[in-house]
Amino acid sequence: MKRISRKDIAEMEKRYRAALVNSLSGFKSANLIGSRSKDGIANLSIVSSTIHLGSNPPLLGTVFRPDSVPRHTLDNLRESGYYTVNHVNSSFTSNAHQTAARYHESISEFEACNLSEEYLGDFKQPFVKQAVIKMAMKKVDEIKIEINGTILVIGEIQDLYLSEDFLRTDGSVDLEKANTVAISGLDTYLKASKIARYSYAKPHKELERLDNV
Amino acid sequence: MKRISRKDIAEMEKRYRAALVNSLSGFKSANLIGSRSKDGIANLSIVSSTIHLGSNPPLLGTVFRPDSVPRHTLDNLRESGYYTVNHVNSSFTSNAHQTAARYHESISEFEACNLSEEYLGDFKQPFVKQAVIKMAMKKVDEIKIEINGTILVIGEIQDLYLSEDFLRTDGSVDLEKANTVAISGLDTYLKASKIARYSYAKPHKELERLDNV
Repeated sequence: MKRISRKDIAEMEKRYRAALVNSLSGFKSANLIGSRSKDGIANLSIVSSTIHLGSNPPLLGTVFRPDSVPRHTLDNLRESGYYTVNHVNSSFTSNAHQTAARYHESISEFEACNLSEEYLGDFKQPFVKQAVIKMAMKKVDEIKIEINGTILVIGEIQDLYLSEDFLRTDGSVDLEKANTVAISGLDTYLKASKIARYSYAKPHKELERLDNV
Repeated sequence: MKRISRKDIAEMEKRYRAALVNSLSGFKSANLIGSRSKDGIANLSIVSSTIHLGSNPPLLGTVFRPDSVPRHTLDNLRESGYYTVNHVNSSFTSNAHQTAARYHESISEFEACNLSEEYLGDFKQPFVKQAVIKMAMKKVDEIKIEINGTILVIGEIQDLYLSEDFLRTDGSVDLEKANTVAISGLDTYLKASKIARYSYAKPHKELERLDNV
C-alpha cells in the first residue's frame, strides 16, 4: 500500500490534487439541476454533490463552490427559490457532462447541450425531458461551510416524477433499472449493477438477501 | 410518468417513505467509519453519507442522524477528534451492512461482523484491513443542520492508503478497479462499470473520450 500524506497532497499540482481528492469519497450521484435566470434563460448544470439529507420532510442537499461553473445555477435558485433535480441517465452522459462548460449567461445549456426543456404541472422551473426520475424542489435553507467557503443548499422535494416500473413494493426505487448513472472523480460516468440487497441488520441475526422484493 | 406529491410523501407509511426518499439523490458512497470509544472499544459503522467537500484542503463530509445507529461513532469522533474512512469493497458488502446493527457499546463491530482491525503509522484509530482504499481523518468542523437536526461532520484527510495500481496518471483513482461499491437507498449494494470518461467541458468544443488515461 502506498501512503500519501496530508503534506504530499498539499504539494501536488492543482489539477492532479483535484482529480485525486475528488475520487476519495467513493461514488457520487449524477444529477442535472434545472433553473431559470431572472432574464428567463433556462439553465442546466451537472452536479455530483446532491445528497440525501432526510426523509421526513424529504430533503436533498447540494454542495456548490461559489467560484465554479454552476454559479449561474446558485444565483438562479437563490433568486427564485425553486429548481429541479433530474437523474442523469446512461443515454445522455455526454450531454450532461457538457453542461459543465462555462457558457455565457445568455445561453441556455439545454439548447447548447441538446437536452430538452420540459414543464410539468404548474412548476415554472425546467425539467429535463430525457430524465426518467426528476423532482421539483423548493429551496428551504442555505448553509455556508466556513472552512472552505462552499455552500450547502437544502431543498425540499415538492413533486417526484418517475415511471411506476422503477418503484419496488417496499418504496425503494430501482436505480439500476432506471439506468441512473454514478460519477467518480471529476469526469467518469458509470453504470451500476446490483450485488445484493440485505435485510435490516440486527445484532446476532444473519442477514437475509432481499433480491426478490 | 407517475407524479408523487409532497403531500403523498408526507402521508406514506414511515418505512415506505424512508425507502423511497433514500433512493432519490441517486447513487451514494459506501464507507466504513472506524473509531474508538473512550473505553477503548473499536467501533465500525457503515455510512452512505460521506461526500467530497473540497480538495485543498482535502475535506470529506459525513452526515449523521443523531438518533440513528452510528451514534457511537459520532460520540467517539467528537471525543477523540479522529477517525478512519474505509471504502467498502465488493468482497465484504454483507459484513459492512451488518455493522449497522445496534450492538451494545461494549461490543466491537469489527469482531461481531468479521472484519479485521488494522493500525497504520502512529494513527490510533482502527482501519479496516480488508479495505484497499482508506484514510486517516481529523475532524475539523461540525455543522448542525437545523431544519431536521442532522449533523454534518467535516474531516480533513491526514493520510491516504491505497495501491498504486488504482492511481491513474492524472491523479484520479480507478474505483472500478478497486472494487469500491455504491449504495442505493437503505440496503442495496452495487458494483459500477465505466461508461465513459470525458475531457474538461468547454463551450463550443466537442468532448473527447479519456478512456485510455
